[in-house]
Amino acid sequence: MPKIDLQSIEQTNRTGYPSPFDRDVEGRWYRRVAPSSGMADFGVGHVTLRPGAWSSQRHWHDGEDEFLVMLEGEAILVEDDGRSLLTAGDCAAWPKGSTNGHHLINESDNDCVFIVVGGGTNIGGGYSDVDLKFTKDGQYVHRDGTPYPEAERPA
Amino acid sequence: MPKIDLQSIEQTNRTGYPSPFDRDVEGRWYRRVAPSSGMADFGVGHVTLRPGAWSSQRHWHDGEDEFLVMLEGEAILVEDDGRSLLTAGDCAAWPKGSTNGHHLINESDNDCVFIVVGGGTNIGGGYSDVDLKFTKDGQYVHRDGTPYPEAERPA
Repeated sequence: MPKIDLQSIEQTNRTGYPSPFDRDVEGRWYRRVAPSSGMADFGVGHVTLRPGAWSSQRHWHDGEDEFLVMLEGEAILVEDDGRSLLTAGDCAAWPKGSTNGHHLINESDNDCVFIVVGGGTNIGGGYSDVDLKFTKDGQYVHRDGTPYPEAERPA
Repeated sequence: MPKIDLQSIEQTNRTGYPSPFDRDVEGRWYRRVAPSSGMADFGVGHVTLRPGAWSSQRHWHDGEDEFLVMLEGEAILVEDDGRSLLTAGDCAAWPKGSTNGHHLINESDNDCVFIVVGGGTNIGGGYSDVDLKFTKDGQYVHRDGTPYPEAERPA
């Protein structure tokens, strides 16, 4: 049945971020929904942020649109132009190519849960607040292009 | 700010279905979220089903993956192999090309609200229970290919 059994999908807090950027996402627990569901046209993440966790370093994608809908709890969306509260039912969209970086921070005392959808093609992207960018080949590099020690692919 | 102001997006119950298939979706009120948000890699619908309303005639897409997450209320997902209850937080996926048609019926006494995402390319698709299919050109036709009187594009 296409109703998705979320519990059957591995939930992980794995990240490929080089140190020390990995610490902010330790409390980000996610499931990759699309592959096991047979979908290939876009990616779907089911994400839980523990209190204090970040969804990512503040970033943008050069070639991939991103959409988020909050399911439970609340988080603060941080962008160049300020902070917005996202609560259950709130939606946000980040079209590819906009360098107005975004991330969510769970500043509450409870978990928050959201769905994030990504489409398009990875051609790289950047981070607003740290010396980091990611390449079309899935590598993390400094802003000057120097590689970080090889870790996992960007997540 | 990329937080989406849903209230600013037109909500409509328009349908291109030929009569009498349009009646079942009279209580389906939706917003097209992607265009006004600048996203192009996939479509996003924010849909409210009034009590009794159907999300669509039971259908599939030959070339487009579809993903749904329930935000509020509940509905029955109907497919070839039976019925499933979807409540807030439940997700479902319909990979392109599977002819196991699906739709949601709100059999409850309250509205239900969901997000639906569609990707890929429209190359047509079919309907499980009625003499209808849609073409890559956005026309509704009988199963034998005879056109229905021109209406709107499939929705």
